[in-house]
Amino acid sequence: MTAESPAPSLDRRLDEFYGDLEAAHLAPLWPISARLMPPTPEPRAIPYLWRWSTLRPLGELAGKLVSIDRGGDRRVLSLANPGLGGEPYATSTLWGAIQYLGPRESAPGHRHTPAAIRFVLEGTGVWTTVNGDACTMTPGDLVLTPSWHWHDHNNEGDQPMIWFDGLDLPTVKALDAVFFEPYEPDELQQVVGRDMSERLWGARSAAPRGDDRPAHGTASPLLVYRWNDIDAALDALHAERGGAETILEYTNPVTGGPVMPTLACEMHRLQAGQRTRGRRSVGSSIHVVYRGEGTSIIGGQQFRWGRGDIFVVPSWVPVEHEPDAMSDLFVLTDRPILETLHLFREEWLDTPQTVTGTFDSVAPVGSV
Amino acid sequence: MTAESPAPSLDRRLDEFYGDLEAAHLAPLWPISARLMPPTPEPRAIPYLWRWSTLRPLGELAGKLVSIDRGGDRRVLSLANPGLGGEPYATSTLWGAIQYLGPRESAPGHRHTPAAIRFVLEGTGVWTTVNGDACTMTPGDLVLTPSWHWHDHNNEGDQPMIWFDGLDLPTVKALDAVFFEPYEPDELQQVVGRDMSERLWGARSAAPRGDDRPAHGTASPLLVYRWNDIDAALDALHAERGGAETILEYTNPVTGGPVMPTLACEMHRLQAGQRTRGRRSVGSSIHVVYRGEGTSIIGGQQFRWGRGDIFVVPSWVPVEHEPDAMSDLFVLTDRPILETLHLFREEWLDTPQTVTGTFDSVAPVGSV
Amino acid sequence: MTAESPAPSLDRRLDEFYGDLEAAHLAPLWPISARLMPPTPEPRAIPYLWRWSTLRPLGELAGKLVSIDRGGDRRVLSLANPGLGGEPYATSTLWGAIQYLGPRESAPGHRHTPAAIRFVLEGTGVWTTVNGDACTMTPGDLVLTPSWHWHDHNNEGDQPMIWFDGLDLPTVKALDAVFFEPYEPDELQQVVGRDMSERLWGARSAAPRGDDRPAHGTASPLLVYRWNDIDAALDALHAERGGAETILEYTNPVTGGPVMPTLACEMHRLQAGQRTRGRRSVGSSIHVVYRGEGTSIIGGQQFRWGRGDIFVVPSWVPVEHEPDAMSDLFVLTDRPILETLHLFREEWLDTPQTVTGTFDSVAPVGSV
Amino acid sequence: MTAESPAPSLDRRLDEFYGDLEAAHLAPLWPISARLMPPTPEPRAIPYLWRWSTLRPLGELAGKLVSIDRGGDRRVLSLANPGLGGEPYATSTLWGAIQYLGPRESAPGHRHTPAAIRFVLEGTGVWTTVNGDACTMTPGDLVLTPSWHWHDHNNEGDQPMIWFDGLDLPTVKALDAVFFEPYEPDELQQVVGRDMSERLWGARSAAPRGDDRPAHGTASPLLVYRWNDIDAALDALHAERGGAETILEYTNPVTGGPVMPTLACEMHRLQAGQRTRGRRSVGSSIHVVYRGEGTSIIGGQQFRWGRGDIFVVPSWVPVEHEPDAMSDLFVLTDRPILETLHLFREEWLDTPQTVTGTFDSVAPVGSV
Repeated sequence: MTAESPAPSLDRRLDEFYGDLEAAHLAPLWPISARLMPPTPEPRAIPYLWRWSTLRPLGELAGKLVSIDRGGDRRVLSLANPGLGGEPYATSTLWGAIQYLGPRESAPGHRHTPAAIRFVLEGTGVWTTVNGDACTMTPGDLVLTPSWHWHDHNNEGDQPMIWFDGLDLPTVKALDAVFFEPYEPDELQQVVGRDMSERLWGARSAAPRGDDRPAHGTASPLLVYRWNDIDAALDALHAERGGAETILEYTNPVTGGPVMPTLACEMHRLQAGQRTRGRRSVGSSIHVVYRGEGTSIIGGQQFRWGRGDIFVVPSWVPVEHEPDAMSDLFVLTDRPILETLHLFREEWLDTPQTVTGTFDSVAPVGSV
Repeated sequence: MTAESPAPSLDRRLDEFYGDLEAAHLAPLWPISARLMPPTPEPRAIPYLWRWSTLRPLGELAGKLVSIDRGGDRRVLSLANPGLGGEPYATSTLWGAIQYLGPRESAPGHRHTPAAIRFVLEGTGVWTTVNGDACTMTPGDLVLTPSWHWHDHNNEGDQPMIWFDGLDLPTVKALDAVFFEPYEPDELQQVVGRDMSERLWGARSAAPRGDDRPAHGTASPLLVYRWNDIDAALDALHAERGGAETILEYTNPVTGGPVMPTLACEMHRLQAGQRTRGRRSVGSSIHVVYRGEGTSIIGGQQFRWGRGDIFVVPSWVPVEHEPDAMSDLFVLTDRPILETLHLFREEWLDTPQTVTGTFDSVAPVGSV
Repeated sequence: MTAESPAPSLDRRLDEFYGDLEAAHLAPLWPISARLMPPTPEPRAIPYLWRWSTLRPLGELAGKLVSIDRGGDRRVLSLANPGLGGEPYATSTLWGAIQYLGPRESAPGHRHTPAAIRFVLEGTGVWTTVNGDACTMTPGDLVLTPSWHWHDHNNEGDQPMIWFDGLDLPTVKALDAVFFEPYEPDELQQVVGRDMSERLWGARSAAPRGDDRPAHGTASPLLVYRWNDIDAALDALHAERGGAETILEYTNPVTGGPVMPTLACEMHRLQAGQRTRGRRSVGSSIHVVYRGEGTSIIGGQQFRWGRGDIFVVPSWVPVEHEPDAMSDLFVLTDRPILETLHLFREEWLDTPQTVTGTFDSVAPVGSV
Repeated sequence: MTAESPAPSLDRRLDEFYGDLEAAHLAPLWPISARLMPPTPEPRAIPYLWRWSTLRPLGELAGKLVSIDRGGDRRVLSLANPGLGGEPYATSTLWGAIQYLGPRESAPGHRHTPAAIRFVLEGTGVWTTVNGDACTMTPGDLVLTPSWHWHDHNNEGDQPMIWFDGLDLPTVKALDAVFFEPYEPDELQQVVGRDMSERLWGARSAAPRGDDRPAHGTASPLLVYRWNDIDAALDALHAERGGAETILEYTNPVTGGPVMPTLACEMHRLQAGQRTRGRRSVGSSIHVVYRGEGTSIIGGQQFRWGRGDIFVVPSWVPVEHEPDAMSDLFVLTDRPILETLHLFREEWLDTPQTVTGTFDSVAPVGSV
């Protein structure tokens, strides 16, 4: 008996099978399971740093070349992490950007479900109106524009202002939960009052009684956190605790928790010459150098930084700081999400990281 | 046939029956149900006022006549509501008292499950040490000694101090939950630091990150609330809101809620000449006049008050204020308990109360 | 110069001073502080037991002698703890009673802020209507009438029913928070449906989605807990765990917590011949023997019990059980209040209690 | 003076500027803001349906061609939504798959931070061991393998089993929070007991007291939900409510909330011939047809379905059902995440959708 019609080989049957799967929009798990579920997080975003010496002039140039109008609404340069293949995100979960508002300019009103924070780097004379409350802004101040709150920005002064924008946009987009609405028909909201939220909610461990509690949602009803208060609180906290790193979290006065359900804001004060202990945690963060200079070791790589520089730390990448001067780093993280979903982990390193390289970004700012 | 042994009458059978019940330690509900469950609360405590002109000299006299020692530990004159039949309680649920600490005196350490607050009325140079943290005290300050926290009081100055003591003792006692322990063998705790809680937890809407959160219990880790801060916050709140009465609640920075699970503290600022709207609520309160003078109508009765006077409002009794000058009333209530147990109710009056009498307590302080 | 008017002695001055205090409605703390704040709770209520052989006939007699009408609304014999000086309370914080409803009788509708539970001891054919939901009752069932819910009881059968009533009344009264309202003008509510809450909320670890969640308050929306379910759950739990005592708590399906904000209900299954480990806790409890017989040692005293007997354990009094047969004890406690207010403590004994006496209550039920 | 070197044109300057931005890893917001923040969610995932007539034979074929071993650990065919460009995800946030386990096969132990649920479609004789608890599986049962719980699957019978796998993997991956660990050195866990969680946590509105509460995390300690219980609960709920659609949510007995912090499971019972009202909500869902047949209109497109078919509804896409027979749809959603982050919205349609097309997937299963 001859083998005229031999059974097809296993390979051929497998090929056919994989073809069938693809046609049926099914994917076999076994070839990809190791990639889908690595032992520890493998973020696509990489540690990266943007220099103030690059950001500042490009922001100014944008101010000269690009007007603010209804087309884009905002003159924003977003940090595009090189690991994310062109997506305009600072990390997988956080949006970070520089916003530049020239003298007498204003950015029209709108609202969106992604929540935003503004941390002022330079300039005065601007206010951000949030649901009718005109919040004045000076360097070092934190201003909140919570989810689905109307907001516009208004520069009444003669100088430009530059601030850092942080949003939970990548996460809200990953959840397919982005809603957006322009304010109409006027460009700017009617101002009901100035810095109202501070008078209502800005007391030191005290709050208006009863009915005034925010009715729904859990974003902070306090919309501005002043640098002077934070500075003094860091002094006090360091006086009590000492240590290489003093961490203060901005809190929602109604809950004592983070300022937004999705975003936490912190100020880290580093003592000159004291290296912090290495730490890594699930979730990513954006660090804005508000004061000082020094070096951080992130995932074994050295990042030198000074005032206005911005750097990011992806999930589970270890970080240590070696400040040359007393330094204040404003830090934005997605920690509230991870804690709420019971996915947060944190780990302290027993030994300093071995340095394997030095970060060097010489951005060719040809046109400045 | 004659009726020699007639059936006992119903009355006689009922008498026997009630006798049997009593012998069996049973009580029939029907004769007492209306008393047990009245349509609205019928507190035994009555609205009452104690005058500073009585409290101050009697406190001083106690200072001369009675030493502080391990027998009683504290030189405290407690407000004994006339409605409570001799019980040393200001209302059914709240303890209120004046504590007098002479120059160079100290009150030894102890702890107990009832929680206490201290509101300073007169004097300086005293500190209260709470679990090792020596909290300095000046007039208008609020100091917390939460449940089961060690505490002692220490006057290092040359003047006496008088403060208001408020405790949840009647409630904790009604729940059979009082525990007490003297500090031994020393009279006073070792002082670890001074005003530490303020440096750790006293920031304006900011808090140390993470590990420092109180591990269990929900009393505020902030132990002192300064008058200056409260005063400024009331100014701001009134500037924003206006109105006859501005109410600020002291809050726990970790939760945004009341300072203790059982006690809420508020400061009510009244505007001169503006009568507040009548209100009544479930739960009782003690009002300490920190500043100003005026009249309150409580349950239809007029109470005239001035600085240092203390008056109480039992549950569900309506209250309105008619200040002659801008006045600040420190208010202690049991509201957190009622809210937690879903028993809180509040009602605004549509019309001012009809005044039916005037409170007059001329305490015959013969020996002063 | 002669000493005609010598200074008054200290004693006389103290006498005068104490007189002044009393006249001013002030009480000195120092003579009473030890009594006010003992080292551990000193409840006035004492351990006590009421026998079914007393309760049953007195309930029946009440049925003959006393009609239910608007005067008292309920034919209830309340447990009056001998330590409470005549107050009709089972412990300082709990009301316990036997309610007797004769054939074709009904108890008219009303509502009150104290919350109540009913645990059926004998009889069938009765339903309790709670906010329109007619809940049928059979022995071993637990029925809830949460705070401020309308309720009436209705016996459509030919036999009497006897059930145990448990309320948080002493606590709600101590908080001056009792409100009461009769249902008018009809005696009984319109019945909307029968056992609706079971169909809506009685699933095993599943619940209607979304909108159906109770809008406010935290009492369980499930109003009946069936003995068959509890019995089966105890079997399963014991099969998994073993041990001398198997404790199952009735839970609110919306929160997983206790059935009421103020009351917890448990069933304790004891294994024949196995002595339980001694335990004491803050808060009091009422134990209703649903099945079995045995002895409990409470505060060193032996209590013998059998079916239908009811005994109470005051705060911080240790208790151990020695069942002769497999026994089921229904237990009502005020634990949710103590836990919520952070006053709960529990302690296991290292050694069995020394027995110091035997409880003997021979109630002289002369008229039965 | 001649214009020898004219100023560069605005266009050229803009080109240079955009080049500089790109080189500096910055992205201008204005050209992309409309895409980043559309008025309503624009999910990449599309409504799609996979037929049982495709899934079943391909699963069986996988069983013949592919062995389970440490390489891939699981014989899983994942639903790859055509809108997601090849990613093996059913929607942007949910993983859905068919798992096939042949007779006498087992899938080795591991654990991962993504949480999973299993809904059994066919077969018996399999158990899934979760942290030592061997959970038996029969059709219609739901089995949980919560985040970071060890789990393996074991077929002791002579027939294959097919179940639906649902995971929060896309979301956990988007958050860079995936951790994975194989169980070693054995393939399977030691079995501590069978169906223990049911005996401990499976009671109807009752739970073991106290210490047994899960110490951390909020996933349900009940690991199996039986079809019989769900079926009976749906009967009761429909009897009480009526209506075209009866929705029951599987709940965590400890919290009364969803079974996982990230995933909700529901069973929807549809009444034959009754069209449900249109609804859309933020968040996506996977529908597994457990019983019945009918049509759904999803985003205007008609999807015909029968037993075993699986279809998905992306965020904010409206859906209505038109069952031909009484049908039971098992539904998995990411709603808990959206609710926790305050991003959930839901909207009922006033009018039925206009049907614009009919879905047709004829998968060319050539090799079957």
